[in-house]
Amino acid sequence: MKQRKDSKELSQKNGLMIPVSHKNVNINDGFWTQYIDLVRNVVIPYQWDALNDRIPGAEPSHAIENFRIAAGETEGEFYGCVFQDSDVAKWLEAVGYSLAAHPDSELERTADEVIDIIAKAQQENGYLNTYFTIKEPDKKWTNLRDCHELYCAGHMIEAAVAYYKATGKRKLLDVVCRFVDHIETVFGPETGKKKGYPGHEEIELALVKLYRVTGEEKYLRLSKFFIDERGRKPYYFEIEAEARGNKNFYNMWDKMGPSYFQAHLPVREQATAEGHAVRAVYLYSGMADVAAETGDKELLEACKKLWDNIISKRMYITAGIGSMSIGEAFTFDYDLPNDTAYAETCAAIGLVFFAHRMLQIDINNCYSDVMERALYNSVLSGMSQDGKRFFYVNPLEVWPEACEKNKIKEHVKVTRQPWFGCACCPPNVARLLASLGQYIYSINKDELYTHLYIGGEAEVDILGHKVIIKQETQYPWDEKVVIKVLTAQEKEFALALRIPGWCNNAKISVNGEGINIDDIKVNGYAKIKRNWKNEDVIELVLPMPVLRIKAHPNVRENIGKVALQRGPIVYCLEEVDNGANLHDILLPKNSEFRVDFESELLGGVCVITTVAERGNYITWGNELYKPDVNVESEPVTVKFIPYYAWANRTPGEMVVWVREKKF
Amino acid sequence: MKQRKDSKELSQKNGLMIPVSHKNVNINDGFWTQYIDLVRNVVIPYQWDALNDRIPGAEPSHAIENFRIAAGETEGEFYGCVFQDSDVAKWLEAVGYSLAAHPDSELERTADEVIDIIAKAQQENGYLNTYFTIKEPDKKWTNLRDCHELYCAGHMIEAAVAYYKATGKRKLLDVVCRFVDHIETVFGPETGKKKGYPGHEEIELALVKLYRVTGEEKYLRLSKFFIDERGRKPYYFEIEAEARGNKNFYNMWDKMGPSYFQAHLPVREQATAEGHAVRAVYLYSGMADVAAETGDKELLEACKKLWDNIISKRMYITAGIGSMSIGEAFTFDYDLPNDTAYAETCAAIGLVFFAHRMLQIDINNCYSDVMERALYNSVLSGMSQDGKRFFYVNPLEVWPEACEKNKIKEHVKVTRQPWFGCACCPPNVARLLASLGQYIYSINKDELYTHLYIGGEAEVDILGHKVIIKQETQYPWDEKVVIKVLTAQEKEFALALRIPGWCNNAKISVNGEGINIDDIKVNGYAKIKRNWKNEDVIELVLPMPVLRIKAHPNVRENIGKVALQRGPIVYCLEEVDNGANLHDILLPKNSEFRVDFESELLGGVCVITTVAERGNYITWGNELYKPDVNVESEPVTVKFIPYYAWANRTPGEMVVWVREKKF
Repeated sequence: MKQRKDSKELSQKNGLMIPVSHKNVNINDGFWTQYIDLVRNVVIPYQWDALNDRIPGAEPSHAIENFRIAAGETEGEFYGCVFQDSDVAKWLEAVGYSLAAHPDSELERTADEVIDIIAKAQQENGYLNTYFTIKEPDKKWTNLRDCHELYCAGHMIEAAVAYYKATGKRKLLDVVCRFVDHIETVFGPETGKKKGYPGHEEIELALVKLYRVTGEEKYLRLSKFFIDERGRKPYYFEIEAEARGNKNFYNMWDKMGPSYFQAHLPVREQATAEGHAVRAVYLYSGMADVAAETGDKELLEACKKLWDNIISKRMYITAGIGSMSIGEAFTFDYDLPNDTAYAETCAAIGLVFFAHRMLQIDINNCYSDVMERALYNSVLSGMSQDGKRFFYVNPLEVWPEACEKNKIKEHVKVTRQPWFGCACCPPNVARLLASLGQYIYSINKDELYTHLYIGGEAEVDILGHKVIIKQETQYPWDEKVVIKVLTAQEKEFALALRIPGWCNNAKISVNGEGINIDDIKVNGYAKIKRNWKNEDVIELVLPMPVLRIKAHPNVRENIGKVALQRGPIVYCLEEVDNGANLHDILLPKNSEFRVDFESELLGGVCVITTVAERGNYITWGNELYKPDVNVESEPVTVKFIPYYAWANRTPGEMVVWVREKKF
Repeated sequence: MKQRKDSKELSQKNGLMIPVSHKNVNINDGFWTQYIDLVRNVVIPYQWDALNDRIPGAEPSHAIENFRIAAGETEGEFYGCVFQDSDVAKWLEAVGYSLAAHPDSELERTADEVIDIIAKAQQENGYLNTYFTIKEPDKKWTNLRDCHELYCAGHMIEAAVAYYKATGKRKLLDVVCRFVDHIETVFGPETGKKKGYPGHEEIELALVKLYRVTGEEKYLRLSKFFIDERGRKPYYFEIEAEARGNKNFYNMWDKMGPSYFQAHLPVREQATAEGHAVRAVYLYSGMADVAAETGDKELLEACKKLWDNIISKRMYITAGIGSMSIGEAFTFDYDLPNDTAYAETCAAIGLVFFAHRMLQIDINNCYSDVMERALYNSVLSGMSQDGKRFFYVNPLEVWPEACEKNKIKEHVKVTRQPWFGCACCPPNVARLLASLGQYIYSINKDELYTHLYIGGEAEVDILGHKVIIKQETQYPWDEKVVIKVLTAQEKEFALALRIPGWCNNAKISVNGEGINIDDIKVNGYAKIKRNWKNEDVIELVLPMPVLRIKAHPNVRENIGKVALQRGPIVYCLEEVDNGANLHDILLPKNSEFRVDFESELLGGVCVITTVAERGNYITWGNELYKPDVNVESEPVTVKFIPYYAWANRTPGEMVVWVREKKF
């Protein structure tokens, strides 16, 4: 193995920004700290119990036990999904991020023990996958479409990189390098190697991480190989299916067609986001990584097209993606049903990954705005406020009886669920929140970009000069963000602050002196270039009126409706505050909104109250249909809460989009 | 076999009304004659070709061939659904009805030949079912839940009764009597007999028909037995499943639970319409029949409760029923999604059956109004105007791209389909239209009820006195109905005319002299009792303003929307007349409607035009979400056509429920 290169060194050679590592960011924030603490104190321990089958009433995971069996430490059968290994990997990755910010020797010892087992489970030739080691040793690499071998490898790589960066321990990193070295003997452009690619993308972005941490070019090449092969004809998934006598692991995927796997076209020719939403954004993230590292403009163009398609035609206002439960998939432009949405938590997380990568290549608030929208809405809605229950599906409208009795909505749960057999979302939330620090800042030579307004301190290295940036804010509830620069010596650099797209009248002052933002705004960032002195204070004010958002007229579900947004937070109505039959509520065109911070509600949230109208149906009677009736409306006070916090009280109805009364 | 009794005799002993047979009704109507002719000239011959696998491009039926194989006339394997026999039976039934009104010696000869084959296919002991005769002779009566043996028997009984009544030929009647005699040795309350009942109801109502035509009380008893056993615990479907080692024919039905089969509770305890909608209304029709013949008040009460539940909470405005594709089923109160509706043509037909039976027991326009609503809307929409294509699913809103790309709508077809492997709806439409005459009048001693306004002549026997009733009308387009009484001698009797629920200001005159309807209206019928003379003329005027119908506020899909109805006809907007994006149209509160009869359009229909509004989105741009935008509306002329006639021109969008602008 070559000498490890620093990721900064690798990226900056391509003129890219690089994120400031979460290791250098200490979050101390009125909003996020509670969630990050939950991950450390509740989610990671809870998931450890789950992986060890110690959650009463939950479906057993068996994931650790599978590794023990593969390691020869115990005897037994494989149990769980074919991709069960990835749960262990995602847990380890979250542990890595958590240790980076909060050293914890006991947790580290536990992780080391797991890593020892994983290392023992690795086969002589480097192969590592408990399903195929224990259950079907003769069928390795025969069904990339269904069997998630490369997907599990990708997650193990991500875990190894995170754990290595946090602890400096190489054991798991060495394991995954040996594994990838083996994979590279199986797949590649050379004669005799398979021309395959994973059914579930993930290894593409993981290999770039491994490349960045090891400097091994072949890892980058392998990632690029998987990306370039995808969707070429003849389809590899058909070739391998034929080779195994058309026996498939999951028959449901036969019906999906190649677009479910984003394998319908070479990726450079793909212009619309298709198929399984999580797979799609993981692929696009990997494509962005490879484009960044190789300077492949064509690949970057494909990323931009796919990004635009999602953002302008296939994304819920919450930044949820995936309009359809069958296939957990994208459907088509402007098809964004609120009540049958899938909008998987993992897909929103994947969209954060994609946005964050695009941001480093093509600095623009269009990416960071979406990243923020996802974080504050569809990612956070995935987890309950006690950190123990999770939504996979994040609908924008819920009618509980329909979820129970109309099967097109049976994927929509009215309450978060404790743990799933196929447990993708909970560990994904954990790893994202544990590494949240890395999404706040990026650095590009003498420019420091602030993407998110989250309280805490970051230690950054600006051209060899150490600067501490301190944010103090009650964001997203309060419009004021105070940023302090702490520096031993004066230093000239640019501090670029994201001006969110939702904000119209942002104001900035430095040491009390106002700055005209229009003069310094580039790509949605206000770039303050000056000779910064110790304890310089920037005050950023991001006015947060309640916005009445409308959807593009082609979004049929939302015609004649509005959603409320304040700052980055999308709001909803819940039955517990407003009674049942939320569909009946009409928001007058010129309603006045009152915003109150309720510290005791849902961990402390701003609520919006206003006077709306509801029909007076007292005299309607039993008729299902009536001609020429006039239903009088009555004023009624309604209370909106942040969407992410729904379903943390009495279960009931919820709506984001409310009908508007047009006068 | 006992002496055959006349159905009139049997029913009148219970004080019931009896329908005037279609044999005595000669329809000559500007609206219906074209459809009845289509059935005779196109549908029945086309279906005959289909049953004989002579439709190029259509999935083969093999239904006649199955009978030939079972009869030993040819060799081969069974092919098709387990209920393939029923297609032959439904065709024969339609032929019976058609022959009753229009003798056709060639058609009759063809039918006789089919009957000969059926008779040969009957086994020694009376058993008759080609699937079990050819394919699984050892598994007869082992899986009532899935295998449709009693369902197919029921359809064959209906065919036999219809054919016997039309032609007087007993051959098929004798076959089914022998078959039922055999069934009666297998099922019944006696020790050693199975306590089963069909998974798909149908035989219950058929057995009452057989009882009425033969006078054999045991057929009525067997029907009552099947009805009474249904839903009792322990569940028979579980008992038989265990007996066959839990091997099921269709695994999908395992997941449905007993309510899918209306077997969750004893029928007398059922108060909500549950499960597969066709099965449900066939069951309820059979229950009504048994209640009528036995005077079983408890059973009648159950029928009324189920009726009320459907009509007041689970029926589309088109009289379509079944809100969900999965299970082709009812869901729950007020769940009536327009775009994912199932609303199967067969279910609407079954609702006509149920309504017609209830009407005879409990004369009231609540039944005949629904019967009319179903006939003019969701039944007729099932067939194309050339009689060659059929809808199974009758949605109230169609977005073609969504039907193609969002799998929750994949059951919704944008164009009618030529013929299906599982061909339930086309022959069902055929048999209903071919027997339409029997739904127009009922007689109860000295009262003659007119339920439907359809031109033609009926010959009725009023207490032994022959009277001809002649209707002349351009209904449903024109509000005037002229009824002439032709009688050799003066005769006192009551002529009761349905005053439709949708009609507010009906007027009646006899021989030019006005009658106050309020004085003579009973249960929604204006009862004109007088000494009728030859050529007395009644003029009924049913004003047909365009009605703006609203749905009960609990129907979430329709909140803030209206549907247009004129007379019995529900209207819709089609893309071909109004452009795409129909969801955007807003109907002002006080729109004026213009009604024009367009003789060249869709076989001649009244269209409704009005000025509506649409948003002007020219300046919207590409943003998916925008804050605080004000979209101006522009006036636009829109054209509504009758719902039943949609999808007969260029395929495209369609909506029934249109948003209302509230000022």
